[in-house]
Amino acid sequence: MRQTALGIDIGGTFTKFGLSDIEGNILMEGSIPTYTHKEIDQFLEALSTAIKENLDKILEPIDIIGVGIGAPNGNYYNGTIEHAPNLHWKGIIPFIDLFQKHFDLPMIMTNDANAAAIGEKVFGGAKDMNDFIVVTLGTGLGSGFVTRGKLIYGHDGLAGELGHTNVYPDGRECNCGKRGCLETYASASGIKRTVFKLLATNNVDTPLRNYTYESLSSKKITEMALQGDPIALEAYEYTSDILGLKLADAAAVTSPETIFLFGGLAKAGDILIEATKKAFNDYLYPGYKGKIQIKLSELMDKNAAVLGASALVWSEIAQSDIIRVPQQSRVM
Amino acid sequence: MRQTALGIDIGGTFTKFGLSDIEGNILMEGSIPTYTHKEIDQFLEALSTAIKENLDKILEPIDIIGVGIGAPNGNYYNGTIEHAPNLHWKGIIPFIDLFQKHFDLPMIMTNDANAAAIGEKVFGGAKDMNDFIVVTLGTGLGSGFVTRGKLIYGHDGLAGELGHTNVYPDGRECNCGKRGCLETYASASGIKRTVFKLLATNNVDTPLRNYTYESLSSKKITEMALQGDPIALEAYEYTSDILGLKLADAAAVTSPETIFLFGGLAKAGDILIEATKKAFNDYLYPGYKGKIQIKLSELMDKNAAVLGASALVWSEIAQSDIIRVPQQSRVM
Repeated sequence: MRQTALGIDIGGTFTKFGLSDIEGNILMEGSIPTYTHKEIDQFLEALSTAIKENLDKILEPIDIIGVGIGAPNGNYYNGTIEHAPNLHWKGIIPFIDLFQKHFDLPMIMTNDANAAAIGEKVFGGAKDMNDFIVVTLGTGLGSGFVTRGKLIYGHDGLAGELGHTNVYPDGRECNCGKRGCLETYASASGIKRTVFKLLATNNVDTPLRNYTYESLSSKKITEMALQGDPIALEAYEYTSDILGLKLADAAAVTSPETIFLFGGLAKAGDILIEATKKAFNDYLYPGYKGKIQIKLSELMDKNAAVLGASALVWSEIAQSDIIRVPQQSRVM
Repeated sequence: MRQTALGIDIGGTFTKFGLSDIEGNILMEGSIPTYTHKEIDQFLEALSTAIKENLDKILEPIDIIGVGIGAPNGNYYNGTIEHAPNLHWKGIIPFIDLFQKHFDLPMIMTNDANAAAIGEKVFGGAKDMNDFIVVTLGTGLGSGFVTRGKLIYGHDGLAGELGHTNVYPDGRECNCGKRGCLETYASASGIKRTVFKLLATNNVDTPLRNYTYESLSSKKITEMALQGDPIALEAYEYTSDILGLKLADAAAVTSPETIFLFGGLAKAGDILIEATKKAFNDYLYPGYKGKIQIKLSELMDKNAAVLGASALVWSEIAQSDIIRVPQQSRVM
């Protein structure tokens, strides 16, 4: 009987789910809208129904050993979603306690960027690494820090908020309530803000002047940058410089072997990566120079959200030895 | 027979050593100058002789279970001191390999701030904590990050360089070769630079105008601040604001329960702590607000350097159960 893990990735717009085995083969997948379900009970009912319908279609005998859930502001220690700005359900939602009424299975939850980091370790480019960072550049900026082979959860289960470190304390308004957070610069929404700032300060002729704030996407900015548009290129340079600096600061805390970039903005590839690497090395503590890599996530084109969520199961519930941490302490 | 650990703290000026038991009782202590020994062999010879002379004076029977060494740029994985700017011995010094020729004992090395962090865990205010940060505010700024009850060493053994995160990339020259590092602002030397900057930009009358750069100490600045000197007070405010911001950034990575401040500058007490707390909370991700404390180290008035170095032995060589980490993962 094949051992499988159910992975669930809760996003502001869609919630994706999938069943995979330890090799990362996906046996079934699906999704439901998140935002249409204003009440958590209603959402869990719809999610359970969709998952059960999909499970019924699997013909081979399977054993589901656990459920991994990646969610914005997901708390690892409590299984709760806490004050997530992009979700309808306000306050502290005891997600796992509620969801176990639908599936009597071991469940584990963390935030989406942490799930991406565990996904990178189990299925991606960090298989042989114990110290690395995954930075997700989506609408916001998320981060998962792994040291000694394990995620840093911190004292409250909510560590890894690189997106809310300070760039310009009097700068751009952030959804979190502060100003000048990294994610207001280095994210899909951040680069759009940068383009609008550049349109205001330059007279350069560019088709970007024909977009409203609502209609402009980071995908479009990437497209324009690849075509050589000077404003789009400058926006990427500005973004990369700030990102490189804050990644150098993060590296000075955990000294990772590699920083993996993931998500929509990372799809710009070299335009983002090369400039970020340059800035990173300029701002990096010289003691680390030449030792820390910046790379694209190896899960970029896969169903990373679902794989990352199910990787939680393989790494923590299955107690499999795939995440065996070598003893690095050298007592001489 | 009493079990003991030998702790050694290598500083640019003096090297301190001491023998302590698991309760933190110090059985003997001493020091030798560091800077007068230009060659490492000569230094180790002098250190060994001094330690052996002091050991001979102990009358009760003792068992030395290991040696813990705190050193600038000390590499935990290799037992080496690597390119330490404040020491004579250049390049990579295989310290433990050389020192074991003098003492045939298990040895463990880390940098001085990491040793302070382990000292805080074994003997100080972090006894019951698994997630905390210790920041040492001396001539420079050092940091030790503990998560899940263990130090973060990173992929190369050199993690925890908060002092070299970026404040103003075009700012003050740092010994590390970069500009604008945190330690050029928030340290004993940093606050002196700030005083000189303030003397240059203000016309305020202050006795601080009678000091040369060489003769002014951070201790003097603290003394003047406590007496209400406006320049000294402004220097502390400026320092605290920058320190609070960068501590908020660090907290966003590891979400510690407490950040302990330690070292000469921390002796300013409330003048530093209260303003740093205020800035910290202003710049902190709202999700952490009210949950993360900033406190003075509880080892401030003790022989912290030696205790910290010997704590390495108790926490790693002795495999004692004093650092037992509770299982925090909640699989539901």
